[in-house]
This record gives sequence, structure tokens and C-alpha cells, in this order.
Amino acid sequence: VTLSLTPVRGVPLIKPGDNLAQLILDALVRAGFILTDGDILVLAQKIVSKSEGRLVCLRDVIPSPRAEELALVTQKDPRFIELVLRESKEVLRTRPGTIVVEHKHGFVCANAGIDHSNVSGTDGMDGDEWFLLLPEDSDASARHLRDMIRQLTGLEVGILIIDSHGRAWRLGTVGIAIGIAGLPGLVDLRGTQDLFGYTLKVTMVAAADELAAAASLVMGQAAEGTPVVHVRGFPYPLREAELDELIRPHEMDMFR
Amino acid sequence: VTLSLTPVRGVPLIKPGDNLAQLILDALVRAGFILTDGDILVLAQKIVSKSEGRLVCLRDVIPSPRAEELALVTQKDPRFIELVLRESKEVLRTRPGTIVVEHKHGFVCANAGIDHSNVSGTDGMDGDEWFLLLPEDSDASARHLRDMIRQLTGLEVGILIIDSHGRAWRLGTVGIAIGIAGLPGLVDLRGTQDLFGYTLKVTMVAAADELAAAASLVMGQAAEGTPVVHVRGFPYPLREAELDELIRPHEMDMFR
Repeated sequence: VTLSLTPVRGVPLIKPGDNLAQLILDALVRAGFILTDGDILVLAQKIVSKSEGRLVCLRDVIPSPRAEELALVTQKDPRFIELVLRESKEVLRTRPGTIVVEHKHGFVCANAGIDHSNVSGTDGMDGDEWFLLLPEDSDASARHLRDMIRQLTGLEVGILIIDSHGRAWRLGTVGIAIGIAGLPGLVDLRGTQDLFGYTLKVTMVAAADELAAAASLVMGQAAEGTPVVHVRGFPYPLREAELDELIRPHEMDMFR
Repeated sequence: VTLSLTPVRGVPLIKPGDNLAQLILDALVRAGFILTDGDILVLAQKIVSKSEGRLVCLRDVIPSPRAEELALVTQKDPRFIELVLRESKEVLRTRPGTIVVEHKHGFVCANAGIDHSNVSGTDGMDGDEWFLLLPEDSDASARHLRDMIRQLTGLEVGILIIDSHGRAWRLGTVGIAIGIAGLPGLVDLRGTQDLFGYTLKVTMVAAADELAAAASLVMGQAAEGTPVVHVRGFPYPLREAELDELIRPHEMDMFR
């Protein structure tokens, strides 16, 4: 009944085109992990995006008039804002230093999840102007990794891709699910009973987000060297799921 | 380097006036845990509030005109709304079925964190109209427990009191810190370097909230029987802290 989360040391720096599943399995073997059915692997978004080549150089970006306008408000590079707009459905808030959007995948976050990326060591990609977009379809990325691992090992593992988000009313970032395969996003406890036989009416647990936060704690932020966390003891049954079940529909959103 | 979270079985149902520290230590011993310096105990808010007698019966509550008014909007019992208002600084949103407030402790949540409480088995407190308020001062409750455990065992442990909150843009609840003693709320990684020697500029990690989410996953919701989680392997140095460091100041709040 113990939930244990262990960073997987020795995953190499990931480059566009790398076979992420194979590299992770190799690192697990070298680190002495014995993967079993029902284990979950949590991956930092960065390595998934890098393996998928989601790098963009600002030199190649031509900002739209709207990007120029929001760049003034946010005091950010208009080419960066252009990237944010291309990845977003809607801009929710802009302030000096901040742009909060609804990402095209449905979740609300700063900068559309786009990070400055240090690409030193990647051939032909030197310089300070590279940025990393989120995966084109993080659920699909998670499913692909899950399928690859099944193919290479015969094992059924869950895959969770996470990012770090700020929150509306609290300081600091927390790990959050952006792509899932083979584990529940939400767990619906409505109708189950507590110790007293009192039937729960409203409890839906964001289990994938809770696991994302837990794994993020273990990954740390400064060390890009442990972007994979091995999880054993996830307390709910594994099942097929999509990130969408964690996204609050617009009509239930009171804070847009 | 493994973070492990284990529910502590056998904590009895808590009643007002119970010595929580002693009951938890007893349960730890019976369950075979060997507590050591640097371990963290995560407690569900419910058992802390119950031990502190934070139960209120609706029969004893007289709603104010403002509570009557908000009860119409939210379609809730005006006496319940009265309790919510007494625990709050400000009402942020009201909708049928929902009231979101800034709790007097500073965090934003639904219903001021007040839950219906089944008090069966508690002498003289039968009936369906009992509600449980958050601790009067959750940081003080956490410090008190930490001090009691130090006194009883000589050990330095961290104490984290958690609740489950909804989020503005995502579905499902996640565990969240409401009181801390002896562990950091925020971890400031600004100025540290990543693998490439690139200095991080903005990363503040809400470590206590990430741990709260992790522990909440292990506690489950339906089973009030595992309201205590034992944590080993928290990756950041323990230190004195207050919940306040996790609360976003009003002037930085874009979503009020």
C-alpha cells in the first residue's frame, strides 16, 4: 500500500528524433529497476517535446500585429508572443511579464507552456533564441510511449506526461498532467461510502494531477537530469483515459 | 532518493479533546513504523478539526440577512452560508450549488472548507446537522503536533495538514496544504543552475502543495480510516515555515 516515487537516473540528454521509450528502458535497466505490470512512468514534458522536435527558433518567427500589441502590454518579445498565440485558443489575462492563455489542448496556463530551451550540444542549433513548444498531442505522445514499451517488454505500464503550472491564488508551481495513457485522469468516488456508510455526493479526485504533483516533487526543477520518475503503488485501477476529463468545461468556469 | 508515502492504518475515529499526537504515535507503533528524524506526517484536516472540537450544529446558527440573500443565490441552507461567511474574508463567486470565498486564513476555496460531518458515535451529538470547520489556526495546530511529537519521542518530524480543493480551470479535487510546521511551503530555486549551467530565473516550487497532493492520493477520500500518511524521502531541506508563503498576495491576483 506504499506509493513510491523514484527518479530514474541516467536518462541521456534527449535530442529530436530520439527513441524515448528505448532510452528510458535502457536507463531503467542500468539503474536496476525491474519494471512490472501496473507501474507508471512519469515524464517531464521537456523530454517528450524535444524528442518530437518541437523546438522553434525566434529568428524564424514573424509576429502578427496582435502579437506586437500584446508584446507591448506583457513586455515580452513579440516573436515569443506570436508562438504563444499560435499554441492558444484564447488569451485570458495579460500583465507586464505575464500572459495567461487557454492552450489549444484546453488547459489554462502561462506562456502556453512554452519554455526557453537551452540547446547546447545539439548540432546546428546553437544560440539563445530556441524555445520548446508542448507536444502537438500529449495524449497521443503518452499512448505512443505506452505502446512502444508494451511492444519492447510485453508490460502494461501507465504513462503520464507532466508540466509545472502556476495557480490562480497560490504561489509556486505544481506538477500537472498534460498527457495520459493507461491511468485515470479523474477518479469518481460519487456513490461510494465513507466509514460511516455516508454516501459521498460530490467527490471527484484529480488523481493524475495528484500523481503529477508527487512526481514533480521528486524530479526537482533544477536538474533536467531526472526527467523520468518510476511510480509503484498507484492506488486506483488503471484504465484508458484522456486528459480531456481533467479540463473544466467553459460553462462551469467561473474565473475566465 | 525514493519518496515513499504510506497510509497509517489504525488511527481511531477522532473525537473532540483527543490527544492526536499520542493516538498517531500509537498507531505508528502498532503498524510497525519506525519514525526517524526528517520524516513527515501528513494529516487530513478532518481529524485535526475534530480533535479541536470545531464542530457546529446548524440548529445553533442564526443566519444574517446577507447569509439569507446568498442562500437564495446558492440554493444552500442560510445557516450553512452563515458559517461560511463567518470563516471568510471575502466572497469571490456565487452560483447555484457553489460559493467560493477567500478563507480568513487567506486561501481561496469553496464553502470556506466547511464539510458536512457525520458525528455518529460521538456522545450527545447525533443528527444530520453537524458541520466541521477548519482548524482555528492550522499552522499553530501543525506546530503543536510537531512539538508534542518532539516531546514524546525526541524526534524532529515535519507536520503537514491538508484539505482537498477544487481548481479554477480543472476538474476534480487535489490535496492542498492548509497548515505546515517544520517543512518548506515554497522552495525557491531562483539562481540555481540547470544541467547546462543556465540560471533559473523564476522557478518557485510549491513543495508543500505537491506533497499534499501526493499524500491525498494515498489517503483516498472514501476511507476516513487512513487520515494520516507517513512520508520518507522529501527531497528538500526541512525548515520552519508558515502557510502564508504559499498564498498569492492580492496585488498579484489576476483572477479575483
